[in-house]
Amino acid sequence: MAGLTHFDDEGRAHMVDVSEKASTARVAVAAGWVRMAPETLATIVEGRAKKGDVIGVARLAGIMGAKRTSDLIPLCHPLPVTKVAVDLVPDDTLPGLRIEATVKTAGQTGVEMEALTAVSTAALTVYDMAKAIDRAMEIGGIHLRLKDGGKSGRYEAE
Amino acid sequence: MAGLTHFDDEGRAHMVDVSEKASTARVAVAAGWVRMAPETLATIVEGRAKKGDVIGVARLAGIMGAKRTSDLIPLCHPLPVTKVAVDLVPDDTLPGLRIEATVKTAGQTGVEMEALTAVSTAALTVYDMAKAIDRAMEIGGIHLRLKDGGKSGRYEAE
Amino acid sequence: MAGLTHFDDEGRAHMVDVSEKASTARVAVAAGWVRMAPETLATIVEGRAKKGDVIGVARLAGIMGAKRTSDLIPLCHPLPVTKVAVDLVPDDTLPGLRIEATVKTAGQTGVEMEALTAVSTAALTVYDMAKAIDRAMEIGGIHLRLKDGGKSGRYEAE
Amino acid sequence: MAGLTHFDDEGRAHMVDVSEKASTARVAVAAGWVRMAPETLATIVEGRAKKGDVIGVARLAGIMGAKRTSDLIPLCHPLPVTKVAVDLVPDDTLPGLRIEATVKTAGQTGVEMEALTAVSTAALTVYDMAKAIDRAMEIGGIHLRLKDGGKSGRYEAE
Amino acid sequence: MAGLTHFDDEGRAHMVDVSEKASTARVAVAAGWVRMAPETLATIVEGRAKKGDVIGVARLAGIMGAKRTSDLIPLCHPLPVTKVAVDLVPDDTLPGLRIEATVKTAGQTGVEMEALTAVSTAALTVYDMAKAIDRAMEIGGIHLRLKDGGKSGRYEAE
Amino acid sequence: MAGLTHFDDEGRAHMVDVSEKASTARVAVAAGWVRMAPETLATIVEGRAKKGDVIGVARLAGIMGAKRTSDLIPLCHPLPVTKVAVDLVPDDTLPGLRIEATVKTAGQTGVEMEALTAVSTAALTVYDMAKAIDRAMEIGGIHLRLKDGGKSGRYEAE
Repeated sequence: MAGLTHFDDEGRAHMVDVSEKASTARVAVAAGWVRMAPETLATIVEGRAKKGDVIGVARLAGIMGAKRTSDLIPLCHPLPVTKVAVDLVPDDTLPGLRIEATVKTAGQTGVEMEALTAVSTAALTVYDMAKAIDRAMEIGGIHLRLKDGGKSGRYEAE
Repeated sequence: MAGLTHFDDEGRAHMVDVSEKASTARVAVAAGWVRMAPETLATIVEGRAKKGDVIGVARLAGIMGAKRTSDLIPLCHPLPVTKVAVDLVPDDTLPGLRIEATVKTAGQTGVEMEALTAVSTAALTVYDMAKAIDRAMEIGGIHLRLKDGGKSGRYEAE
Repeated sequence: MAGLTHFDDEGRAHMVDVSEKASTARVAVAAGWVRMAPETLATIVEGRAKKGDVIGVARLAGIMGAKRTSDLIPLCHPLPVTKVAVDLVPDDTLPGLRIEATVKTAGQTGVEMEALTAVSTAALTVYDMAKAIDRAMEIGGIHLRLKDGGKSGRYEAE
Repeated sequence: MAGLTHFDDEGRAHMVDVSEKASTARVAVAAGWVRMAPETLATIVEGRAKKGDVIGVARLAGIMGAKRTSDLIPLCHPLPVTKVAVDLVPDDTLPGLRIEATVKTAGQTGVEMEALTAVSTAALTVYDMAKAIDRAMEIGGIHLRLKDGGKSGRYEAE
Repeated sequence: MAGLTHFDDEGRAHMVDVSEKASTARVAVAAGWVRMAPETLATIVEGRAKKGDVIGVARLAGIMGAKRTSDLIPLCHPLPVTKVAVDLVPDDTLPGLRIEATVKTAGQTGVEMEALTAVSTAALTVYDMAKAIDRAMEIGGIHLRLKDGGKSGRYEAE
Repeated sequence: MAGLTHFDDEGRAHMVDVSEKASTARVAVAAGWVRMAPETLATIVEGRAKKGDVIGVARLAGIMGAKRTSDLIPLCHPLPVTKVAVDLVPDDTLPGLRIEATVKTAGQTGVEMEALTAVSTAALTVYDMAKAIDRAMEIGGIHLRLKDGGKSGRYEAE
């Protein structure tokens, strides 16, 4: 199947053989957002200042989610990440929270999926914590912003 | 913190006490999409007919992801789901795949997070399998379409 | 697809809806064996008496494996087991170890997969612990000996 | 305990120290089968062509199972696999499905257990998906076909 | 083995059969502490007020740890908890942090292990986060403060 | 935040970037104990000689717990351990069991948390297995006895 490397010549799914790939420094940055009612965002932002930290909980969930990536994505290679950072920033124009995750490793495959999984898990956690007041929140804009390292080199979203 | 039930009066995160809630039939439906280049969608659709089934792998990942929800979402109650179905439908106007997940249980809390996690995991798996040919794919539109059961009753997205 | 209940009418894999099934007492017994060189069996049996307990480790692995069943089997319902027992008995005529696992629950689905997973995990653990002296061991005879409970009632292997 | 390296001199189970072993290219191939009624095999084979893909689901379960090996086998070293392929082939003479798994890594220990766990998990998944029509299926013939790499070198089953 | 219910008459470890036990409301409270240098405690307390929340991270880890209890404790029954709360309070006289966890469920077994695991995991997380400035921290005093529900009734530590 | 490396300059929790650290041989030894009534210790010691092996089960739980460390501790780096040994020794003067765990790896971060998690998990398992006869057991004295390797070099508890 042209291009879909997760299938062999017979169309059977497999975990791609990366045994011969060099182990190089890898980095990936992914982003996304949770859109919500302005009142929901206000409650989250206010809560952070006073008490109750939605952003702190979501950040931690994102970091831990990155470590579970190869458990969740069937054909994803397991690899020990060497750095995970997740940030959530309130944005009144959305309105909602903008999420960005950065993951690094030294390995034979990239960490794009780890970064994207971190963003998704953080976003789901925001939804979980605010759903009692706003069921209509939407998670979107999840994309790869940057990757570097490995044979395919650097990629930056336009 | 008004409305954010995952925090106590002091703002401390906790898993909400649902011991006194009745165990009722619960259902949740969530949806989302993966937007991609038309060529990527064509490769996936063609591959499905011939060999290599991105949609089949992503569906399975979504189902299994639903079972890992309480591992991923810090304050989410664990509960044994009684049904999970995930569907991915090609949409040329997107272009990309539209994803919908339905989850059921009989329990003291709802299964919104399980349905949303199923959609997210299926979407991430599509990304993983097609990223070799299209790094610019975007995951979005993840929202709760419907929930029913429990004290708060029925909710349908407009 | 006639009979294969894990697929819907369109052939899509799903976790079967058991929401309407009654929660009843369930039991399942599965069995299997690990065949090995007579010297390997002698080493295991002797080790048990003196020091080093392959059987004890494999039993524990089987019990813990039963608890991971729904993580491993994609379309298997999660359910909280109420009893797991795994036994491994040396058999010189095999030669090797005969394994039997019994699992119980009260639930909407049976525990056949939990019993079979317990046997498999115990067998794999025996292999792991004795592979340094016998790589030619074979795992086989894994089958369901008995199940009871639920709408389909009792089944006993002939 | 002579030969059983998973126990120390006092017979205490431990995870063997491989710190001083060289990290080399490793490969392991394991095999096994699921025997079933001819009608069951026919249903699976027919379903594959038309709709409902038991083999595809079992393959994926086997690949994901390989990644969970060190979670399941108590004294097994965790290591990041670099390739996993699982194949299931219908065999009318069995009758049933023959399963083969190939796993690779670069590491200090072999991947025999990962290959055997992949075969076992795929076999259990076949059982799960076809048990509604055939409870008498049997899983067997699970053995190591080949391993290479590391100090003990190459092994091939006769 | 008199009293050690996790072994059968032959001394074999098993997961105790609780199938016949009534499902009742259960609660358990466990406690423990992390002792540290006064400067370490000051850094943690100060950090909380300003930036960097060791206590918040440890609380979340404790809550999530409670959900992993049956994965960690070999013969522990899995059960869906209905409430988990973990609190960490600075105590200058220790000096260090005092930890308390409360867990509830409705089930056939108690939640003592879930409460104790929550305390342990929170304590380990404090150690992890402060170890760069204080390797000599000690975790101790982990005990069951209270349990209620089930046939054995109420227990309170003296 | 001075010294608390798990937070960035803004006080946000993150998994520290160790990408630039050299991969070196690492070892850590942690210790702890479970204090119990003399009769409880006698039952455990007697059971070990005759039948029922609390110490064997707890040792295995400790080894497996070490492998789950990065799942449990939010900001802990995942890394493949190359050796885990856990020992439990009866001590009449405690009275109770003294626990020691040794973990090794070659990596960019230390294995202190793996050793401490092994001790904690073994201790919790002892509690679980003996709680039917002694609910007042206490887990304590958990500390790092030794670490070596990495830039910060050797540490030994006084």
